[in-house]
Amino acid sequence: MTKQELFNNIKKKKSFLCIGLDTDIKKIPVHFLEEEDPIYAFNVKIIDATAKYCVAYKPNAAFYESMGIKGVIALEKTIEYIRTKYPDQFIILDAKRGDIGNTSEMYAASAFEHLKANAVTVAPYMGEDSVTPFLKYPNKWVILLALTSNKGSNDFQLTADANGERLFEKVLKKSQEWATDEQLMFVVGATQGEMFADIRKYAPSHFLLVPGVGAQGGSLEEVVKYGMNDQCGLLVNSSRAIIYADDSLDFAFAAAEEAKKVQQEMAVYLNRLID
Amino acid sequence: MTKQELFNNIKKKKSFLCIGLDTDIKKIPVHFLEEEDPIYAFNVKIIDATAKYCVAYKPNAAFYESMGIKGVIALEKTIEYIRTKYPDQFIILDAKRGDIGNTSEMYAASAFEHLKANAVTVAPYMGEDSVTPFLKYPNKWVILLALTSNKGSNDFQLTADANGERLFEKVLKKSQEWATDEQLMFVVGATQGEMFADIRKYAPSHFLLVPGVGAQGGSLEEVVKYGMNDQCGLLVNSSRAIIYADDSLDFAFAAAEEAKKVQQEMAVYLNRLID
Repeated sequence: MTKQELFNNIKKKKSFLCIGLDTDIKKIPVHFLEEEDPIYAFNVKIIDATAKYCVAYKPNAAFYESMGIKGVIALEKTIEYIRTKYPDQFIILDAKRGDIGNTSEMYAASAFEHLKANAVTVAPYMGEDSVTPFLKYPNKWVILLALTSNKGSNDFQLTADANGERLFEKVLKKSQEWATDEQLMFVVGATQGEMFADIRKYAPSHFLLVPGVGAQGGSLEEVVKYGMNDQCGLLVNSSRAIIYADDSLDFAFAAAEEAKKVQQEMAVYLNRLID
Repeated sequence: MTKQELFNNIKKKKSFLCIGLDTDIKKIPVHFLEEEDPIYAFNVKIIDATAKYCVAYKPNAAFYESMGIKGVIALEKTIEYIRTKYPDQFIILDAKRGDIGNTSEMYAASAFEHLKANAVTVAPYMGEDSVTPFLKYPNKWVILLALTSNKGSNDFQLTADANGERLFEKVLKKSQEWATDEQLMFVVGATQGEMFADIRKYAPSHFLLVPGVGAQGGSLEEVVKYGMNDQCGLLVNSSRAIIYADDSLDFAFAAAEEAKKVQQEMAVYLNRLID
């Protein structure tokens, strides 16, 4: 999917919501445990209930890997389900991968050839040759960690060099030597509030993947205020607050209601942008 | 496995060699393609041929993931094979994982509960709460990226702050607030040569996992000169140079010969240490 196609979907659906499929066997409604593949069965219901309110899904690899083979099968089937039934959804494999060149090539093959995701999250620590193998796939995206939503983001990402340039700024600048905003996005946590203004100094036109609204406590209003650009430039993710909105038989209805609520707030912000 | 047990194995086998199982279906001898599970069948032959010369195996998750379900099955079976047949081998899942706390918990469950590896490689970019979930497992290890073997290690890892402290040094220091050398190792590339002396300033007693000898061109002699401590403190990895030493029917013999050659060089260094 190209950047323009993504923006078109955002305008059409009046949403820049990404739903995180952090599906945990311990948290899904118990009646799914009777299913042959409870994780996949749950995901299908969530996806069918929420697809009209979002433009992206983000399965979190860790949750599937923790279940071994069964989990990996559920992940493959989930992505395939989204791809075939909702081909306009942008599918992000949230995996935080990154290794030396010949190994990143393998991770890229896994994400793009095997799973056929549109994008994969990548950790920048190992530098250029750990990232560029993911960029060899036309119209596939790297979403590079810049400033994350968690407490530990303070440990290294904010470290300033002798010129006052912080590590996340260095990541934003350096990585633009490797790809354009047609293939590169950045992860910036919603909990970072006003830091979005700093991010936009270095990456005015890039899409940002923004986790941390919802369970982690970030504010959508602040993210929009400081982070939105003239092509929206935001994919705001919510995982737990939507997919576990309710654990009764009404879970899918509750997830849809929660997604709709976020989408309606987003529609207001988008209307301002488009007006 | 504890640090003392690992050192005992090193002394017993006169080896601190780790063999990287970067098994690639395109590189294994063609007769394996007739096997039901070529990757696993190849690994078994390599492991049986080399186990006496090494103290650790390091399957590289990317190579298995790139093959989807089949690859993940081969990975599980490979680790199980090493665990049961060679229980004194230290098994490192090379996966470069790391995410927000609740997600790192899932990666830790995958590495330690499901796959039952002894150690997992972790990327430090997201800081403390992305690393500590892996430390909740007694006698299981985090091997944190510090200074990697690839060219891209220059992009961010060497960036100095206003006090001249480089990012990899910050990682070495900060992470020691989270764990002791009984649970924490660091990745330092063999290609980094004299930098090992700098590493040892900050991490004198830790084990270092050292990739980059062999195909990547690092020198074992330099690594030992600057990196060895009084409990050895080194696990030197070789992947391609051993497992693909030959692609004929003699591949296992060639791998054993190559591993033996490295082990014999290591024995000389260890004898100096123990004398």
